[in-house]
Amino acid sequence: VENYKNQHKYYIAIDCIIFGFDKGSLKLLLIKRNFEPCKGSWSLMGGFLQPDESLDKAAKRILLELTGLKDIYLEQLNTYSEINRDPAGRVLSAAYFALIDAEKYKENNNGQRKENYNYTARWFEINKAPKLIFDHDLMVADALKRLKEKSAVQPIGFELLPDKFTIPQLQKLYEAINQTEFDKRNFRKKMLSYNILKQLDEKDKAGSKKGAFLYTIDQQKYNQMMKEGFLFLV
Amino acid sequence: VENYKNQHKYYIAIDCIIFGFDKGSLKLLLIKRNFEPCKGSWSLMGGFLQPDESLDKAAKRILLELTGLKDIYLEQLNTYSEINRDPAGRVLSAAYFALIDAEKYKENNNGQRKENYNYTARWFEINKAPKLIFDHDLMVADALKRLKEKSAVQPIGFELLPDKFTIPQLQKLYEAINQTEFDKRNFRKKMLSYNILKQLDEKDKAGSKKGAFLYTIDQQKYNQMMKEGFLFLV
Repeated sequence: VENYKNQHKYYIAIDCIIFGFDKGSLKLLLIKRNFEPCKGSWSLMGGFLQPDESLDKAAKRILLELTGLKDIYLEQLNTYSEINRDPAGRVLSAAYFALIDAEKYKENNNGQRKENYNYTARWFEINKAPKLIFDHDLMVADALKRLKEKSAVQPIGFELLPDKFTIPQLQKLYEAINQTEFDKRNFRKKMLSYNILKQLDEKDKAGSKKGAFLYTIDQQKYNQMMKEGFLFLV
Repeated sequence: VENYKNQHKYYIAIDCIIFGFDKGSLKLLLIKRNFEPCKGSWSLMGGFLQPDESLDKAAKRILLELTGLKDIYLEQLNTYSEINRDPAGRVLSAAYFALIDAEKYKENNNGQRKENYNYTARWFEINKAPKLIFDHDLMVADALKRLKEKSAVQPIGFELLPDKFTIPQLQKLYEAINQTEFDKRNFRKKMLSYNILKQLDEKDKAGSKKGAFLYTIDQQKYNQMMKEGFLFLV
């Protein structure tokens, strides 16, 4: 159509903020860039949009190629578009965030990328991550903010825990996401009040002699709640 | 840089979901498209990204050009990228949503667009809007969902009200956003508990003989709260 022809076109990248939770702390999966610009610097995992893909599909492909991970929680965050964000050209980047159980990704697993593409990938504690290239630090900050907002509206973040977990583990996760401490009794009461946790007959005795009961998600009730959200006014 | 050269480029559009609130109902500002494809159909207000702009800047420009509005609440929602979303070419669209007091925009105000570009713009009640072009209906649905989520985390939506408003008006707004009804006493109690409303000495007598006190926002406390958010766990 005539009037599109006069318009400019742009490169589109996808960058993935991959959060993991491990031993009570929130972690970030980073990759050491082995190409220019900024070769040798730490970066989010990313790649370019291909003509036969939507952004969602591209994000899934990139994650699979770089980590071997699939079927994980992936959500579009924002598209970053400052004119000089990438020194090598005008590239817009759609950022996605992913939540995984850190146990599920072994560092330096090169995934399914076809070409010979060796790289260094590492988990960093969120507060000890190195400075990232371009506007990736901003992306991480925005993703943390979104995660915090979402955790206030719906029970999110279970993707970061193993299948069986204790309430203290869950509390640590929420404290890591919200960067604050919650009262133990209130937290337990609130979480149980949502009726999405199922208590198991097993205990985790790593934390104390008495042990803490293990819980799992009632998937049906959880899906229902994720669909509906829950409002502070209700 | 060599490795970018092999990548594809894409057209980038910006589409604005403009919510207004008027006489107790949530409205949507739509434009009748006067160019192909889909000439004559109703559409969100939009345009193409220009090389010297970020997406935020482009969204502001488009809104100013098409409506004359500026300094309004505008937030990036999502970027839509399905391959065949636009029949005339591969165009990705970054959707933004805007919240305004419907009184502030007179229908068919052609804004500041330079060329001779007459069009029809109209407010529609959200539940009575016509079918929109492309994936614009999805954009509106997603924007409503985001608005609902946000209204659960932070006191949002005051941009939709006049400077002075009554608690019943505020309740109607929240009910329209959440598509549900709230208990009158609970709503008032909850809203006042946030300490962001300032009661004025004036009453609005349109609703009843006794009248309802007018309120205004305590801008300082509001900004503070928007920055911090408020969590269901607190």
